[in-house]
Amino acid sequence: MPKDPNPIFMKRAIELATENVRSGAGGPFAAVIVKDGAVVGEAANTVTATNDPTAHGEINAIRKACAALGVFSLAGCEMYTSCEPCPMCLAASYWARLDAIYFGNDCEAAARVGFDDSFLYQEFKRDRADRSLPSQQLMRDEAWDNFQAWHDKPDKIEY
Amino acid sequence: MPKDPNPIFMKRAIELATENVRSGAGGPFAAVIVKDGAVVGEAANTVTATNDPTAHGEINAIRKACAALGVFSLAGCEMYTSCEPCPMCLAASYWARLDAIYFGNDCEAAARVGFDDSFLYQEFKRDRADRSLPSQQLMRDEAWDNFQAWHDKPDKIEY
Repeated sequence: MPKDPNPIFMKRAIELATENVRSGAGGPFAAVIVKDGAVVGEAANTVTATNDPTAHGEINAIRKACAALGVFSLAGCEMYTSCEPCPMCLAASYWARLDAIYFGNDCEAAARVGFDDSFLYQEFKRDRADRSLPSQQLMRDEAWDNFQAWHDKPDKIEY
Repeated sequence: MPKDPNPIFMKRAIELATENVRSGAGGPFAAVIVKDGAVVGEAANTVTATNDPTAHGEINAIRKACAALGVFSLAGCEMYTSCEPCPMCLAASYWARLDAIYFGNDCEAAARVGFDDSFLYQEFKRDRADRSLPSQQLMRDEAWDNFQAWHDKPDKIEY
């Protein structure tokens, strides 16, 4: 790991998650993003409160930290999350270029209270055709136009 | 697949993605969510325009469709996306309970123009300890309090 974790931030994530259950705002999950020893974004899960299935604690915290810092890269930041990120939130952590993730509960614990995280990790080990959510490629040649336009654009902002 | 795909929706996703590059708003990606043959949400990638690394076309389209319908489940909907979802967007599609995904470009094509989707799928096949983004469990016993609170809550809204 890049640095020694500071348990005060994990304690905060756990507190936020329990408070989120007590208030009825959403699931038992929250995350805190830290840069140079200070919190730059924190959030709990708001899937049901905001009608947004992507509003996990980690996604919400990443969005808040980026908004606060005015950046789309959180390189130099660590995330403390009350539960191991699901595949959505883990991939978001890669896209956000986080340095490290500290988690409280693990996926197996989440499964014991009814969440799909562990099932999703199993799905990602399967080939596309073997997953329970069906997918199919269409219009591949036409779709390449998108990437050709990107490739040819001289002033693109890469991310 | 649950139904025959309608190429008009893929054409729309591809158009939105190319327009997104031309306008400079973001990456070459867009998605359209369809329910009962009608578009209920569509969006392009806005990672750089909105300083939000989670603002992929699919995530944006899922959020818009849920807002339009006032729900946190898109069961009964299909997604047409200009490129195969990255792991973040694929997991979001599971959480959103989409019925099916139709995609134009695949991950290997995305890799050819510099995107990490294919790398991320490889990361998800690895065990936690072998991934390039380091993670570590902390305070497991304290974190269980979150799940105990959820388990004990009589009026929770499950998702």
